[in-house]
Amino acid sequence: MKQFAIAIHGGAGTIVRSTLSRETEMSYKKGLEETLLAGDKILSAGGTSIDAVETAVKKLEDNPLFNAGRGAVFTNDGKNELDASIMNGKNLMAGAVTGINNIKNPISLARNVMENSEHVFLSGLGAMAFAEKMKLEFAPDEYFFVQERYDQLIEAKENDQIILDHSGKPKPQFHFPGSKKGTVGAVALDVHGNLAAATSTGGMTNKKFGRVGDSPIIGAGTYANNATCAVSCTGHGEFFIRSVVAYDISCLMEYKGLSLKEACDMVVNQKLVKIGGEGGLIAIDAKGNIEMPFNSEGMYRAMRTSGGEIFTGIFKEEN
Amino acid sequence: MKQFAIAIHGGAGTIVRSTLSRETEMSYKKGLEETLLAGDKILSAGGTSIDAVETAVKKLEDNPLFNAGRGAVFTNDGKNELDASIMNGKNLMAGAVTGINNIKNPISLARNVMENSEHVFLSGLGAMAFAEKMKLEFAPDEYFFVQERYDQLIEAKENDQIILDHSGKPKPQFHFPGSKKGTVGAVALDVHGNLAAATSTGGMTNKKFGRVGDSPIIGAGTYANNATCAVSCTGHGEFFIRSVVAYDISCLMEYKGLSLKEACDMVVNQKLVKIGGEGGLIAIDAKGNIEMPFNSEGMYRAMRTSGGEIFTGIFKEEN
Repeated sequence: MKQFAIAIHGGAGTIVRSTLSRETEMSYKKGLEETLLAGDKILSAGGTSIDAVETAVKKLEDNPLFNAGRGAVFTNDGKNELDASIMNGKNLMAGAVTGINNIKNPISLARNVMENSEHVFLSGLGAMAFAEKMKLEFAPDEYFFVQERYDQLIEAKENDQIILDHSGKPKPQFHFPGSKKGTVGAVALDVHGNLAAATSTGGMTNKKFGRVGDSPIIGAGTYANNATCAVSCTGHGEFFIRSVVAYDISCLMEYKGLSLKEACDMVVNQKLVKIGGEGGLIAIDAKGNIEMPFNSEGMYRAMRTSGGEIFTGIFKEEN
Repeated sequence: MKQFAIAIHGGAGTIVRSTLSRETEMSYKKGLEETLLAGDKILSAGGTSIDAVETAVKKLEDNPLFNAGRGAVFTNDGKNELDASIMNGKNLMAGAVTGINNIKNPISLARNVMENSEHVFLSGLGAMAFAEKMKLEFAPDEYFFVQERYDQLIEAKENDQIILDHSGKPKPQFHFPGSKKGTVGAVALDVHGNLAAATSTGGMTNKKFGRVGDSPIIGAGTYANNATCAVSCTGHGEFFIRSVVAYDISCLMEYKGLSLKEACDMVVNQKLVKIGGEGGLIAIDAKGNIEMPFNSEGMYRAMRTSGGEIFTGIFKEEN
């Protein structure tokens, strides 16, 4: 039987066991497992990795526990601004959107950009006009609204503080569950030998100035290439952009001959740590090897290889 | 004396000698030389590479001959949408903006993002609010207006055609001077051994849907790292994003041990050509070696090393 495999993440950051109730932990793990199985089902039936990662990310977007799609955090002016990107390792085609709202599944819009436009990256109102043309599903503000996220905005505003979801400096007042994660993603290998990666985010609470993180940036937050690997990142986006993290993993494999594990270790635990870039990533190579490194306290993550054991984890000690 | 060097570009594309009058050619070469000397003056006086590339790109933005700042092309709804990015090879800090208008010098806004915000990438109205806060110089629509650019929009609309400034398919009707170039940029090495890169663009005529090209993407259109090189790209942006062109040059040097020349040749004349990605780039390494490869008909370009001979070129045969 040909190998197939999938890994997903629901964000990395200061996720501390003592602040996460057993019940909340179980909700997250349930969300991760359901997502994993949705992608896995496509792969085990001989479907494509691009379908698997889109489906998995849609599930995470639809789950209000995660900061993407429904459940996205609020910007300074009380809006949700969503970013997403997707890349197909088979043909190096890619699609990405930034600064959109009221699109139920940003990752599906990114896929439409990839497959039904001559562009890679669309932004703001223009991206939404394209979504309308493509008949993507829209949803009203209420659909995206989650009280806890709004409370976070109010608190952040009172403190005149941006919540960088993955701030390197722990801010105790924001240690309540869910405040520190920021992005979701999936990577997969299908039985046809094709890799794919997808990433989606709701940004960071109280952000201003139309800030764009790494999630919609091909090469930084997302990259896939059958010759090397597929990668989806989560973390303090500014550092991930400056380090071109996702493509760096690929280059270390292609040009320096590192294994996926060695490349992930060098980028996440050495290069990013050196510049103070907190976060993590999920990565898969053409043989179905999976790595899920992070240099933060925790990362919501799950993986499964060729119908084998299901792994779900949140904290470091679960590795 | 320590080495210093600078290279600039004013866009690559289908620039054919037969369609460019001697007078127009001279205007472009004059603009390139003035720009080069403005950056060179800073370097020869012991200034920094980041000041030199910002100054050079500002000059190109101010020159209506080039599609950046004043002289930018028009989007489908008759607006100018400007993108820019800058990176400092000394500390790997970077700044970028997309989808802005009425900012006289987008590259200076990108530099402000790099130096006066905790972010790397700002977009649209948010980026403009930040510009206001930083007291950047604004300019009215009339300042940016160039009749020829507007005529191009009217013609493109009549043909229901987007003018990809660097379309791989030559469209004879758009071969009049100036229609095919799209981006400006500069790279420099200063006497302190620091590299920097900057890129700015007015996008493409009749573009819709808030399309973002490679120019504001760190890793794709712009990259700088003292350990390897500084790069500014110009071309069919979608291909440059998918190929993470600027960082690819750096990785080929750092991980595979290629020279700047070998890395540029591999990316521009082999990898990009293979996927149909038309365009070029300028690049400089830590020793002051400069490469200005392009796989299109021409590229507006100029360079000077340590006060030596000034080179300006437009067509292939001038190399």
